[in-house]
Amino acid sequence: MKKISEIRKSFFGDKYVIFAPKRSLRPHKISEEEAKRKEQFKENCFFCPSPNEERAIYQIDASGKWLVKVVENKFPALSLSNPKAYGKQEIVIDTPNHGEDFCDLSPEHIRTILDVYAARIKSINELENINYVQVFKNDGGKAGASIPHAHSQIIGLEFIPHHMMTDTLAMDKYFCEKGSCAYCDIIHKEQKEKERIVFEDANVVAFCPWASSSPFALWILPKAHKNKLEDLTPEERLSVAEALKLATSKLDKEEIPYNFFIHDSLPHNDHHFRLKIASRMNVWGGFEIGSGVIINPVFPEDAAMFYKG
Amino acid sequence: MKKISEIRKSFFGDKYVIFAPKRSLRPHKISEEEAKRKEQFKENCFFCPSPNEERAIYQIDASGKWLVKVVENKFPALSLSNPKAYGKQEIVIDTPNHGEDFCDLSPEHIRTILDVYAARIKSINELENINYVQVFKNDGGKAGASIPHAHSQIIGLEFIPHHMMTDTLAMDKYFCEKGSCAYCDIIHKEQKEKERIVFEDANVVAFCPWASSSPFALWILPKAHKNKLEDLTPEERLSVAEALKLATSKLDKEEIPYNFFIHDSLPHNDHHFRLKIASRMNVWGGFEIGSGVIINPVFPEDAAMFYKG
Repeated sequence: MKKISEIRKSFFGDKYVIFAPKRSLRPHKISEEEAKRKEQFKENCFFCPSPNEERAIYQIDASGKWLVKVVENKFPALSLSNPKAYGKQEIVIDTPNHGEDFCDLSPEHIRTILDVYAARIKSINELENINYVQVFKNDGGKAGASIPHAHSQIIGLEFIPHHMMTDTLAMDKYFCEKGSCAYCDIIHKEQKEKERIVFEDANVVAFCPWASSSPFALWILPKAHKNKLEDLTPEERLSVAEALKLATSKLDKEEIPYNFFIHDSLPHNDHHFRLKIASRMNVWGGFEIGSGVIINPVFPEDAAMFYKG
Repeated sequence: MKKISEIRKSFFGDKYVIFAPKRSLRPHKISEEEAKRKEQFKENCFFCPSPNEERAIYQIDASGKWLVKVVENKFPALSLSNPKAYGKQEIVIDTPNHGEDFCDLSPEHIRTILDVYAARIKSINELENINYVQVFKNDGGKAGASIPHAHSQIIGLEFIPHHMMTDTLAMDKYFCEKGSCAYCDIIHKEQKEKERIVFEDANVVAFCPWASSSPFALWILPKAHKNKLEDLTPEERLSVAEALKLATSKLDKEEIPYNFFIHDSLPHNDHHFRLKIASRMNVWGGFEIGSGVIINPVFPEDAAMFYKG
């Protein structure tokens, strides 16, 4: 394990991360809390199949029952009928089985969830005045999950979020200066250096990024320069699902709360699709909030060993 | 209280915030936890006066004893001797009295702390290769505080943090387009609209910003266009201290963890000094982390009523 602090600048863009390893890295065990939380919500769970269950906007069936289902968010911050907070919020229920974690699902089941994401992103993007769709998962109370039944969320926005804008401008600048895609170049760099790669097959590569802004951060990228989840072949999606299962299983085993995000290219741009996992085990202090500079106790090389171990 | 969601764009820059009021806003009471935490650390507290106490880098005395004291951070992520993580970390011990909260201090005592910040910022900025100094406070475990004895932190960096860069570029753009200082214009706008102002005297104005990215966010600004804390007159610093005491007392009473930050102008720029308070009562989910767009349950107009109430 690396012991000496180190500041790293992201491969493109202007973000710095301070890596400052800590002696005791063992995450706080939250099994009992989480188990209680899951039990508490089991009765009258909104997301469980029941005679009065929520009407689906979209669903995928298997053996005559739904396998993955999309419903309206019952308590949305945004809606299509509020001009002051215009937007669309949906929930993807990952499985009908309460208590089954995302990482317990088969790669084929996870691929089906990715198919559902792609279909809903496309559909929500077609709504009037929607200019960005964000898909994300909160796993664990510390990562913002309020209902324990495995689910993901989709938010359609009228505006382009700040992080997307920043990332896109940085990628455009890179394209202009180097004549190539930053993420394609990152893949080649990671393949050459090897020590941060966690998973690789014919279709995708998954690695802990050089200047990761959270412990155990992981990026999953298609090797081919694809713009959006929709453009990935079924084989590529299955590979993404396999990498995702591997990573979330490890995080789950150590009870590390996490988020993941689907980042399609912005419309009218030609940027590489990426799926990003962020762990939520450290509390940000005033320094992180005030400066945007993250102090990360886990070097990505050590995080890669954790995933491969 | 405002009940309907609303999206707001910051006055300058490109950040959006979604205001989505929640029915139950009562913060989670953490008094017992915090009281236990304070008690636990009372014996052998690093920051309490003792025969073996830490050597001061800088201190202000009163009645023959130290009143505010600056020491080296014993567990720094950065140091002047590590070229891979170059920087300087200091701790400002706000008071010799364990258990006395920042908000319990007199305005004059808080002004003395501001004097200490100004002196240390100046001194650290003079070190070789230091290009930015960040002063911040973490109050409460959820805001990142690990030691309960009231203290603030200072970090000197070789690089300009991302948030500062973004803010500075946005202010420069505003200067170029409008020919005036964005923060001066914000002060005039807030004075005209009144409903977000919490504190005002001859020297400073404190208000909950229009597109605040945390519940109960508050900005304290000198009315005069001053660049840095160092340039504020003793009277202006006392006014900042009074506003700070008022705000932190209210947050403390409701047990809301908070951070505050000192934002001087970057060197070679002519930008308005600001002190920003951010509360830490809500957990960010995948949406916030992935998109940078914050869902804030408290409108700034309601936050202003909270501070004034």
